[in-house]
Amino acid sequence: MKRSLSGIQPSGILHIGNYFGAIKQFVENQDKYEGFYFVVDYHALTSLKDPKALRENTYNAILDFLALGLDPEKSTIFVQSDVPEHTELMWLLLNVTPVGLLERGVSYKDKVAKGISANAGLLTYPVLQAADILLYDTNIVPVGKDQKQHIEFARDIAVKFNETYGEVFTLPEPQILESVAVIPGTDGQKMSKSYNNTIQMFASKGQLKKQIMSIVTDSTPLEEPKNPENNVTKIYELFASEEELAAMKEKFAAGGYGYGHAKKELLNKVLEYFGEARTRREELAKNPEYVEEVLRKGAEKARTLAIAKIKEVKKAAGLLGDVYK
Amino acid sequence: MKRSLSGIQPSGILHIGNYFGAIKQFVENQDKYEGFYFVVDYHALTSLKDPKALRENTYNAILDFLALGLDPEKSTIFVQSDVPEHTELMWLLLNVTPVGLLERGVSYKDKVAKGISANAGLLTYPVLQAADILLYDTNIVPVGKDQKQHIEFARDIAVKFNETYGEVFTLPEPQILESVAVIPGTDGQKMSKSYNNTIQMFASKGQLKKQIMSIVTDSTPLEEPKNPENNVTKIYELFASEEELAAMKEKFAAGGYGYGHAKKELLNKVLEYFGEARTRREELAKNPEYVEEVLRKGAEKARTLAIAKIKEVKKAAGLLGDVYK
Repeated sequence: MKRSLSGIQPSGILHIGNYFGAIKQFVENQDKYEGFYFVVDYHALTSLKDPKALRENTYNAILDFLALGLDPEKSTIFVQSDVPEHTELMWLLLNVTPVGLLERGVSYKDKVAKGISANAGLLTYPVLQAADILLYDTNIVPVGKDQKQHIEFARDIAVKFNETYGEVFTLPEPQILESVAVIPGTDGQKMSKSYNNTIQMFASKGQLKKQIMSIVTDSTPLEEPKNPENNVTKIYELFASEEELAAMKEKFAAGGYGYGHAKKELLNKVLEYFGEARTRREELAKNPEYVEEVLRKGAEKARTLAIAKIKEVKKAAGLLGDVYK
Repeated sequence: MKRSLSGIQPSGILHIGNYFGAIKQFVENQDKYEGFYFVVDYHALTSLKDPKALRENTYNAILDFLALGLDPEKSTIFVQSDVPEHTELMWLLLNVTPVGLLERGVSYKDKVAKGISANAGLLTYPVLQAADILLYDTNIVPVGKDQKQHIEFARDIAVKFNETYGEVFTLPEPQILESVAVIPGTDGQKMSKSYNNTIQMFASKGQLKKQIMSIVTDSTPLEEPKNPENNVTKIYELFASEEELAAMKEKFAAGGYGYGHAKKELLNKVLEYFGEARTRREELAKNPEYVEEVLRKGAEKARTLAIAKIKEVKKAAGLLGDVYK
């Protein structure tokens, strides 16, 4: 069975963009691939310097994973920093990675251009990402288009390492999640935490209502017909059946149907769609022993593979460690 | 007892410059400090891409350490790659290290200027060096002048981390080994593997003779007086008593005493000086089980401290790992 791997940043509360753009596919593919899904808390250090927030976000992301249907019996679910071999492999890979390659990294260039102070973590994190992937002989990495370059980096680095030390690494293939780019936020732009336009499936009912009511619409009077292709229908489309979507669009086109009505329908739909997941998440939050056990087992599974691989890699590079232990 | 730490590159066969410049002090200070002496094979990856050579150099450096008097009962002697926490701490430190700091690193600038292709390992290795130091709450780092900047980097990085996450790290002090710069090679320049002007204390008698005979001198005829301050006396000075040195200088000044005579005296002196160490090294080479045991125990001692420290650091930074393990 091919291995599929994806890390999710614990940079804040997950939203329906994360779900439809990524997690939904992970859940659907659990029987098709041997899945590795992990919360990349090491990576988050490049930008998040608040220990309390990092700890809470990481834990919450794990609750979200489990509530949304990632199954620890089928997939390996873990926290990145429980597997320090990621960083050890990173060091070995840094030595076959040209500085110039990293300077061309789009995320680095973007962040520097935005005036985010360039720490060396920001510059080198594509190498940690390469280590994440190569450590598990990953075949497939589902990513958004904006992350495609980093998979190419991982391939380049793997090729360079293999050329230098022999065939150690499997070359990963990106699996582009086309949907990532098109999940619209409440303002019609791509949904993203940094645009502050998200709808969070695990927000309280009150917060969720507020988020949905904030969807940007025009000021056409209630009684007049409205463009059925608006920000509400674009989000409703993610949840509704074809018939339901068609019905809402008809009502918009006919007039006498306001955005407020549509938002109410959307809210109910979202609550219905994530109903089970919301209940499950509440139960998980009450059961930290279970979550802890999941993380412990996930880390164990991941580490067993990671340790075997890093031994192979260290031996190939001539590090004495493996010989004398 | 204060902690003193020093890593030695396994980049080739050690020479009397390494001994008088560094190892001799380590041996002499074994009762004064809690010493950590390790062979930095991770670091060597920045330049050495030959696994067989790396493995052999690492092992040989350990034999050299032990033969020259580093005592595993007094000091912690280990191979860097046996303690992967060095790389894990490096990742955490990278995130508080400005890229600009690394670009100003003298070793990086030097190597780039010499046309050595700049891999990301070369750029970031001062951060691994900082991790080496900070992981053990090191107080004192004996270094040559050329490495002073890297200790300053380690201090800067520690200060930045402490400012961000609380007082986690002890600030190390450099202990400048003045002698490092002044051990002259066979050509009168500083002794260095890269200048190919070394005298190797563990070379075979034949090789050692060749190295000493290659010391550069002038062509003053045998019978004439010679300048007593020449390349032979400068090296003889390291081994001889004041009286012996004065005697040799007198003979040079008097005339009728050739460089060949002096080199022969020097050769005998070197063989005598390192006689015990050479014997011990031969015995160690025949006893890999003992060496293995020393490395295993050294790695255990180092890892016990390293794991405790990395847990503290990870917790401070908000990584979940420690909480759920």
